[in-house]
Amino acid sequence: MRNVRSRSLDYTVESHPSPAAALAAVMKDERPHFLVDRAVHDLLDPEVRASLPAERLVLMEASEVTKSYGSLEPVFLDLLGRGLRRNGLLVVVGGGVLQDAGCFIASVLARGIRWELVPTTLLAQADSCIGSKSSINIGAYKNQIGTFCPPHRVLLVPGFLRTLPFDEIRSGLGEVIKFQLLSGEQGFEELMGDLNSFSALVTADRLSLLAKWVERSMDVKQPVIEIDEFDRGPRLLLNYGHTFGHAFESVTDFGIPHGIAVVLGILTATSVSVRLGLVSENHAAALARKLQPWHEPYAKRLLGFDIANLLAALARDKKNSAAGLSCILTRGFGQMERTSLSAEQIKSCVVPALTDLIHGEFRL
Amino acid sequence: MRNVRSRSLDYTVESHPSPAAALAAVMKDERPHFLVDRAVHDLLDPEVRASLPAERLVLMEASEVTKSYGSLEPVFLDLLGRGLRRNGLLVVVGGGVLQDAGCFIASVLARGIRWELVPTTLLAQADSCIGSKSSINIGAYKNQIGTFCPPHRVLLVPGFLRTLPFDEIRSGLGEVIKFQLLSGEQGFEELMGDLNSFSALVTADRLSLLAKWVERSMDVKQPVIEIDEFDRGPRLLLNYGHTFGHAFESVTDFGIPHGIAVVLGILTATSVSVRLGLVSENHAAALARKLQPWHEPYAKRLLGFDIANLLAALARDKKNSAAGLSCILTRGFGQMERTSLSAEQIKSCVVPALTDLIHGEFRL
Repeated sequence: MRNVRSRSLDYTVESHPSPAAALAAVMKDERPHFLVDRAVHDLLDPEVRASLPAERLVLMEASEVTKSYGSLEPVFLDLLGRGLRRNGLLVVVGGGVLQDAGCFIASVLARGIRWELVPTTLLAQADSCIGSKSSINIGAYKNQIGTFCPPHRVLLVPGFLRTLPFDEIRSGLGEVIKFQLLSGEQGFEELMGDLNSFSALVTADRLSLLAKWVERSMDVKQPVIEIDEFDRGPRLLLNYGHTFGHAFESVTDFGIPHGIAVVLGILTATSVSVRLGLVSENHAAALARKLQPWHEPYAKRLLGFDIANLLAALARDKKNSAAGLSCILTRGFGQMERTSLSAEQIKSCVVPALTDLIHGEFRL
Repeated sequence: MRNVRSRSLDYTVESHPSPAAALAAVMKDERPHFLVDRAVHDLLDPEVRASLPAERLVLMEASEVTKSYGSLEPVFLDLLGRGLRRNGLLVVVGGGVLQDAGCFIASVLARGIRWELVPTTLLAQADSCIGSKSSINIGAYKNQIGTFCPPHRVLLVPGFLRTLPFDEIRSGLGEVIKFQLLSGEQGFEELMGDLNSFSALVTADRLSLLAKWVERSMDVKQPVIEIDEFDRGPRLLLNYGHTFGHAFESVTDFGIPHGIAVVLGILTATSVSVRLGLVSENHAAALARKLQPWHEPYAKRLLGFDIANLLAALARDKKNSAAGLSCILTRGFGQMERTSLSAEQIKSCVVPALTDLIHGEFRL
């Protein structure tokens, strides 16, 4: 069991052997309300599904549209109508969208109620489930609404990954890869070694391997969020790959899964770092070769895109200001640094890196 | 200058001699966005109004309708459209509704931005401006959404009270009276002495007297919110008069100003306390006589109301549960205690107290 410190409360991350065990744990001494991803709900074993209390259960579709301020009003009203109040407990079961929605609801309903999280995607298990952030869209503004409000408990169940599509596994691995690049060469090479054998494994062994790297990801993330919960300093390095990744998601209208866009963003940031003389071409080429199985063929979605559109998407990112493009660059494994790229640097380094990308010519 | 401690940040309460001085102070080193009550804006001196930056100014009507989750979406979008982002500052100018709206917006925009508050009503100055709570309506649910998020600074300007209607002054005095009843007999009698001379004073002296009791109210409230910011224990005593007061507001569709409803709620709670043998009839009678000028003729609004409607309104209060009616009772000045009244006690004590009230027969 992991214990995570937070300004508002300390919380635990526990492992449970099955969805049934996790749901039994949250209902042990409580009569919680549930907010569950409809797709996850449909995939549950019938007995497990039947164990959820229908009168305190709200199902929600997971999408960028439902994860918005306006779309959440009926969810609030449904939960209130089912009697969720100040002393209640909300158990959230799903991936990142459900986590965002549930965290936001728990943050502001009755000025904050207790909530617990059962993350069902690799992305949510390996990355978002700790760190206490929520991100909600409003109107045309993406992720501009949110709170810092950790769950009171995170319940990890590797078995939820059994039914996850392979691209969703790869998407989660994108963040897993990012954490190991931040951690250093040893962790990254161990991960690459494990992943090379991944496709040959039987399902149970795949789940064990993913569970290992979920823990290893948290080992990297936890100390960073504990010293910088509110995203003012060191935690910003966890956005490695995200400046470009977000732009790739945006211009493809979320046609590239988040973690895969992050992998492409990491390669782009590395290419920019080469052009700025921060890291060698060899490092970038080796990285591009090793990461190829974990993003292809999504780089193709960016072929032929207008550079101007990509630059416009970068400019819309909430972390960027008129002063420059905020970006994490690299000097090698475990040596990332936050920079603000000037208009001149955007022209001389970012535009060529993006040009390579949209022409399918990552510098190898 | 007062310094208030809070879990999330310490903040200051400063006095400023005029609206112009307060607005100059918030614009001294910053380019803040403003959220201003439209009615307050219309009453500002033309030069002061002209000093507000039109491109960063959002006006809002103050009402129970605008103070709702759905109604705030266009306000969020207006502020975002005017460029308010993570590192921005939001200055809120208005009474309780603007404070609730501004606090909620500042709590969740970009996961929390800095905000400063210029309270313009006596209620907001004497009571709500410290304590960090926001309360937002959603659908038919009143005050079920909110956050604890103190402003980074409160700027008090007695001059804003110059244009406040007399009933709004009395409404604020309702909370001022409540604080002194909680504090003890000496403070209460001093307040009554001051208020007896109130109507004979010229405006400047009235403002000085109100400024004195704003400070004295904060003297009572501050230590309580500092030890119980999140409303779990001692702070609940500050709800004295509110269980019944909220019901009176509700059944009259907010036809009784909040603080005046609190005064009527205090008298009702005292009447219940007499019936439970907690306090003498003499105490209740003296209190009813002294408080009469500060609520009349609003008790008349309750004449002839159906007891069942009042009980239903009490049952809807978010602080009450199936277990009983949560209520603050009194054993005398400075001796309030939180109780949960049983169904039997509601029948034997609450119903007779309310019956007296709706028949215009407070026990004197």
